Amino acid sequence: MQDSNDSGKKDKRQIGVGILGFGTVGAGVAAGLLDNRGPLAERTGIDIVLRKVADLDVTTDRGVKLPEGVLTNDAMAVINDPAVDIVVELIGGCGVAMKFVKAALQAGKPVVTANKKMLAEHGAEIFGLAAEKNADIFFGASVGGGIPIIRALRDGLAGNRIASIHGILNGTCNYILTKMEREGVPFEAALAEAQRQGFAEADPTLDVDGFDTLHKAAILAALAYGIFPDVRHLAVRGIRGVVEAADIRFAADLGYRIKLLAIVKQDDAGVEIRVAPTLVPEDGMLASVSGVFNAALVKGDLSGDTLYYGRGAGRLPTASTVIGDIAEVARGIAADGWPRIAVPRTSRAVRIKDAGEIVSRHYVRLSLADTPGSLAAAAGVFGDHGVSIQAALQKSMPEERPGFATVVVMTHQAAQSDLDAALAALSRLPCCGAPPCRLGIED
Amino acid sequence: MQDSNDSGKKDKRQIGVGILGFGTVGAGVAAGLLDNRGPLAERTGIDIVLRKVADLDVTTDRGVKLPEGVLTNDAMAVINDPAVDIVVELIGGCGVAMKFVKAALQAGKPVVTANKKMLAEHGAEIFGLAAEKNADIFFGASVGGGIPIIRALRDGLAGNRIASIHGILNGTCNYILTKMEREGVPFEAALAEAQRQGFAEADPTLDVDGFDTLHKAAILAALAYGIFPDVRHLAVRGIRGVVEAADIRFAADLGYRIKLLAIVKQDDAGVEIRVAPTLVPEDGMLASVSGVFNAALVKGDLSGDTLYYGRGAGRLPTASTVIGDIAEVARGIAADGWPRIAVPRTSRAVRIKDAGEIVSRHYVRLSLADTPGSLAAAAGVFGDHGVSIQAALQKSMPEERPGFATVVVMTHQAAQSDLDAALAALSRLPCCGAPPCRLGIED
Repeated sequence: MQDSNDSGKKDKRQIGVGILGFGTVGAGVAAGLLDNRGPLAERTGIDIVLRKVADLDVTTDRGVKLPEGVLTNDAMAVINDPAVDIVVELIGGCGVAMKFVKAALQAGKPVVTANKKMLAEHGAEIFGLAAEKNADIFFGASVGGGIPIIRALRDGLAGNRIASIHGILNGTCNYILTKMEREGVPFEAALAEAQRQGFAEADPTLDVDGFDTLHKAAILAALAYGIFPDVRHLAVRGIRGVVEAADIRFAADLGYRIKLLAIVKQDDAGVEIRVAPTLVPEDGMLASVSGVFNAALVKGDLSGDTLYYGRGAGRLPTASTVIGDIAEVARGIAADGWPRIAVPRTSRAVRIKDAGEIVSRHYVRLSLADTPGSLAAAAGVFGDHGVSIQAALQKSMPEERPGFATVVVMTHQAAQSDLDAALAALSRLPCCGAPPCRLGIED
Repeated sequence: MQDSNDSGKKDKRQIGVGILGFGTVGAGVAAGLLDNRGPLAERTGIDIVLRKVADLDVTTDRGVKLPEGVLTNDAMAVINDPAVDIVVELIGGCGVAMKFVKAALQAGKPVVTANKKMLAEHGAEIFGLAAEKNADIFFGASVGGGIPIIRALRDGLAGNRIASIHGILNGTCNYILTKMEREGVPFEAALAEAQRQGFAEADPTLDVDGFDTLHKAAILAALAYGIFPDVRHLAVRGIRGVVEAADIRFAADLGYRIKLLAIVKQDDAGVEIRVAPTLVPEDGMLASVSGVFNAALVKGDLSGDTLYYGRGAGRLPTASTVIGDIAEVARGIAADGWPRIAVPRTSRAVRIKDAGEIVSRHYVRLSLADTPGSLAAAAGVFGDHGVSIQAALQKSMPEERPGFATVVVMTHQAAQSDLDAALAALSRLPCCGAPPCRLGIED
């Protein structure tokens, strides 16, 4: 490996990664880089190599088998290793994590981080240092876990003036609110269940009192408007002691659901940044976001409403976004004289299935003579063609022919060719009054 | 302007754009580049300048005031203009559009296009030429209009193996299906209404028979798996003659809604690419996508389910994504020795509103003595503080104190400080049995 200062000359096809922090997310990123090295290379044209992982604890089993010599307890050595082109900070908080991030940026190395607290509280300093040192800093996983919302704001919506962002950004709160709504239980019972399920900490303050959401709101505001508010001065209300089961019922009566929202808006009077439990229309997209899922609804002057939805936390979803950032930094490093990859380059021969091979569940609507034995005959035809019936229901259909009944069949998984053969045979049954209608089912 | 071949030396801060095609989307992109030049420069660090717009028709008023000398009818001159760094193709189809795209790539110029037909039918050739000439090709608006779904697959989810994509990618079909579902009308009536509203063409074949969705499915498959299927051999079913009002009713009885889906999947047996009207669970995110909106649900091995939602067509949403692509190409051109912008650089002093200034609608729950005059007294307090009531409803709440009634008030827009003052005054009313509870409303 040549010295990384010789970046104009060395083979750009291989880029080294060093991870700081081998906890839940760090282990997920390490596993993802090792397991998906092939698809990553196809999609980016670059071989991204995990060089080092640093953690104070180098003995606990994280469920990831690292190559020999990768694990170390010396974070500064990882940062200064010439084979490490990208430093990934997954320690969290504003202590040593921030020290290491600053050291990496000082060394001119690009940093990928998921550290929302550091960016919300010290964003101006960190981004200022990155700009001064001409080093990239990527932070996609700091908001929304596995959802590329930061990417969307920075790139996809770059041409827009952002009118507003409404985010459901804390899975713990959304799980609790969903449970209160669906089961009519009070906050305390829903929190206890969230804690049993591992969706809430023993001390849930950061989540249920809105501070986690506020950190994320501050980062979204920085991306949308280039500002770094002092988060201590922003309005934050959580759900604990605020939202009662009765409110959720009444909101439902009014056609609303209650969600804990991060709200970021700009109008002529200024920028609004806050966190508050809020009624949202039940037929809107935000109301459909339930359980631990997160989403952000972004309104741009050109794009109109766009929404980004997915898992807001967890080892693998967060690793997904961190690795996406690593891939982009790697492409940036390699970009000098290297074409961007529009679509992945696959050298394997990929087989595309014929239509008949495709397996799915099916919905079939039959018109059957309203006589004993019709349904048995039809069911027999399905069975003869290897199509297994999950449910068959007689339905009232006013436009049905006299003397015939409408029957809806839901099948288990079946190949299209088998279903087609069954339907053709059904059409030939004397008791079948019309060609069967079919639709797929995707659960 | 220096010669663009001198790309290593010239001032990278200004990047020139040439647009081919001044129709609906072309005019939207031109307007967006002109109107949002300031925010774009803040977010990218680059001054993106509209240099040329070519169209055979240079007389029709497109509602956009172009600077003097920008409009021309000579597309090749735009491609060959040294001041044009990025060529944006918005003509569509596989005729002259493809000729111009190939000419631009031959000249080594990066291309941004929204041309789904060309990429679906000639993707291997176009992407091959781009790779050979070391030229970028960006095509974010070819699928999903204003939704950055292509970006998500290429960048945000780069670290994932994509298990499946389920897309609602044709707004015309989704409008028709939504109308059939909500109003119980047959296909023909819903199509006629879509045509009246301008959501369907006079000849709706491409949309309602599934071909538009199929083109998009092919592009998503190329991004997910690096393959270029012959679209003529893929399974496609539309909604015309397939989905009847009765099916939608029965699906609803079963807890499903019917959507026209692009389905792209991979398993050990191969890749599945098809278009079919499909039942989706009514409590899932895809079922919530109604009217002309589009969405894609992407399942990655790390990310889990993620969903991208927004306007799938239309002048401004499509322009939003095209401009996002232009911004990324511009950053790529400028990247040589130029730092990426992590957050926008704003030189303006941006004011952040105090919590009290923030205006929204509010939901207030009151406990009021069950006596004549209580509601009038409470309403008077709202009015005294400048908070206007949109609705007040008495609600049954079992846990209410004896002798008191629960009243829910929905306000019009009101400043937080006014509401807080009103609530404080309400708390002091003798008829008020408990401190009022409040929540925001975001419609």
